[in-house]
Amino acid sequence: MRLGIDIMGGDFAPESTILGAVLARRELSDEVELLLIGDQEKFNDVIGREGYDPGGLTCIHTDQHIEMGENPVRAFSGKQNSSMRLGLKMLKSEELDGFASAGNTGAMLLGASRIVNAIPGVIRPCITASIPDENEGYTIILDVGLNPDSRPDVLYQYGILGSIYAELVYNIKNPRVGLLNIGEEEEKGNLLTRATFQIMKGTKDFNFIGNVEGTDLFSGNKADVIICDGFVGNVVIKEIEGFYKMLRNKNVQDEFFNRFNFENYGGTAILGILRPVVIGHGISNGTAIKNMILHTRDVIETNLTEKFKTYFNNE
Amino acid sequence: MRLGIDIMGGDFAPESTILGAVLARRELSDEVELLLIGDQEKFNDVIGREGYDPGGLTCIHTDQHIEMGENPVRAFSGKQNSSMRLGLKMLKSEELDGFASAGNTGAMLLGASRIVNAIPGVIRPCITASIPDENEGYTIILDVGLNPDSRPDVLYQYGILGSIYAELVYNIKNPRVGLLNIGEEEEKGNLLTRATFQIMKGTKDFNFIGNVEGTDLFSGNKADVIICDGFVGNVVIKEIEGFYKMLRNKNVQDEFFNRFNFENYGGTAILGILRPVVIGHGISNGTAIKNMILHTRDVIETNLTEKFKTYFNNE
Repeated sequence: MRLGIDIMGGDFAPESTILGAVLARRELSDEVELLLIGDQEKFNDVIGREGYDPGGLTCIHTDQHIEMGENPVRAFSGKQNSSMRLGLKMLKSEELDGFASAGNTGAMLLGASRIVNAIPGVIRPCITASIPDENEGYTIILDVGLNPDSRPDVLYQYGILGSIYAELVYNIKNPRVGLLNIGEEEEKGNLLTRATFQIMKGTKDFNFIGNVEGTDLFSGNKADVIICDGFVGNVVIKEIEGFYKMLRNKNVQDEFFNRFNFENYGGTAILGILRPVVIGHGISNGTAIKNMILHTRDVIETNLTEKFKTYFNNE
Repeated sequence: MRLGIDIMGGDFAPESTILGAVLARRELSDEVELLLIGDQEKFNDVIGREGYDPGGLTCIHTDQHIEMGENPVRAFSGKQNSSMRLGLKMLKSEELDGFASAGNTGAMLLGASRIVNAIPGVIRPCITASIPDENEGYTIILDVGLNPDSRPDVLYQYGILGSIYAELVYNIKNPRVGLLNIGEEEEKGNLLTRATFQIMKGTKDFNFIGNVEGTDLFSGNKADVIICDGFVGNVVIKEIEGFYKMLRNKNVQDEFFNRFNFENYGGTAILGILRPVVIGHGISNGTAIKNMILHTRDVIETNLTEKFKTYFNNE
């Protein structure tokens, strides 16, 4: 398995990304080849300065990279040899089995669609987040920001994508899929959720359990996968970040709530893209980058994108 | 001042509502007359059984009331003498200066619009919630559920309503109004927020400070009033309820976070209705009912609805 990482992407890159790769290397089996895409000189600098063992890490050199604050469209087209673009091109040409970056999110999303492309049949690729729940498990929520305006058929497909993702990557058998709404009854909601409920109701494509509410996000007892449009999903996960930040500011020390520390989060696969692409959080530290790499390995190993392709080809 | 309470409304009514009225009575000045609308016999029972001092409480008898789970439309039309309907009628005819109920929310919203009516010029009345923030203050968020599908001009009016409300009832001078969005930049968001930003930008009707995100909900440093459609607002406040529930389930004891206990919340005025109507939370306990009554007093005392009328008449 060949796994590529953009070492130039992220607020603390390349220090955090190289550290993350070193940490991941220790946990990955020898079957995984780690390819670090970015500036060879900077790679050597960090490895030397920190005294890391470079064994098992290969640097693929390029001297261009996309800055975090750059305009995605301009940066992506303008910098033909950026580490991100190079990684995505290697992914497309199958020199890589998966590619991850904690860099400019807009550029990654654009690049994933333009270079790697969406799976035929998937109307809108989307991104997910995993919300820690009270039962020490996770609830998958999607979309969390890719499509802020959605349609019922798009939300319906999120049910399929999220279901397969939860089953393969999170080992949840026959995941319960809930629609995020403002009441439990089917007539509750806005135009979008009311229409979506009607096409989800009775579906055989996934295990639809009906509406869930904001109060159910952390219980773990209702749904394993929660569907919403990208606007609502983004507000939901940023609210959790805000809550966690407040817990820390108020000095609440609690091991359980450390699971809400988004700085350690691995990243999210873009669901519905032809090959495995994982986006990390910009503020990622070394641990987060390590988790992003392990998550990418899981996405590759579980054959997630192949499963999606088979599903949507057979429709 | 004559303040009416529906003692039959709420999951724990009439026990919780009568207890709440007794508690409020102790804190209210003699200028406030408390009128308890509901079943006289039940009122006498509870007062006698609990040994409450009924001094300063007047019961207005009616033997009908709307159940929590009843269909709002049918219940409201069918039960002409329900305590809720009676209260709203007394409010309209100026026998009351304000009316509050923790009963069937749908019926209250319907009744407020049908019997008391919206202020001319207000496109859509709405409801608010106050979110405790890190600075020991509150951030007002609206709409939290009345209009799950909104338009830019409706959101714009929320800016006016929320601003006046925050200034009069929460004593916040020149409140900073933020638009809840998924990015700070003005081009971020869904169709609704992008269009709303354009009409809020540069307004002189309120102090618009731009977009805010889910991470800013608890900081207290950005906005005093946060505007969103009723779908998003409802998810946001129920997520807080879910988070608070989880804190309790995980035995996190912290005085600061007790402020998030929604069971003690007083209720919310329906902004944009011609006369003061306050809705309580169905699960309200005695303390919550007391707070609902005190909040209603504040809304009456600050002349909130008159200020709204003046504002929208002069437009």
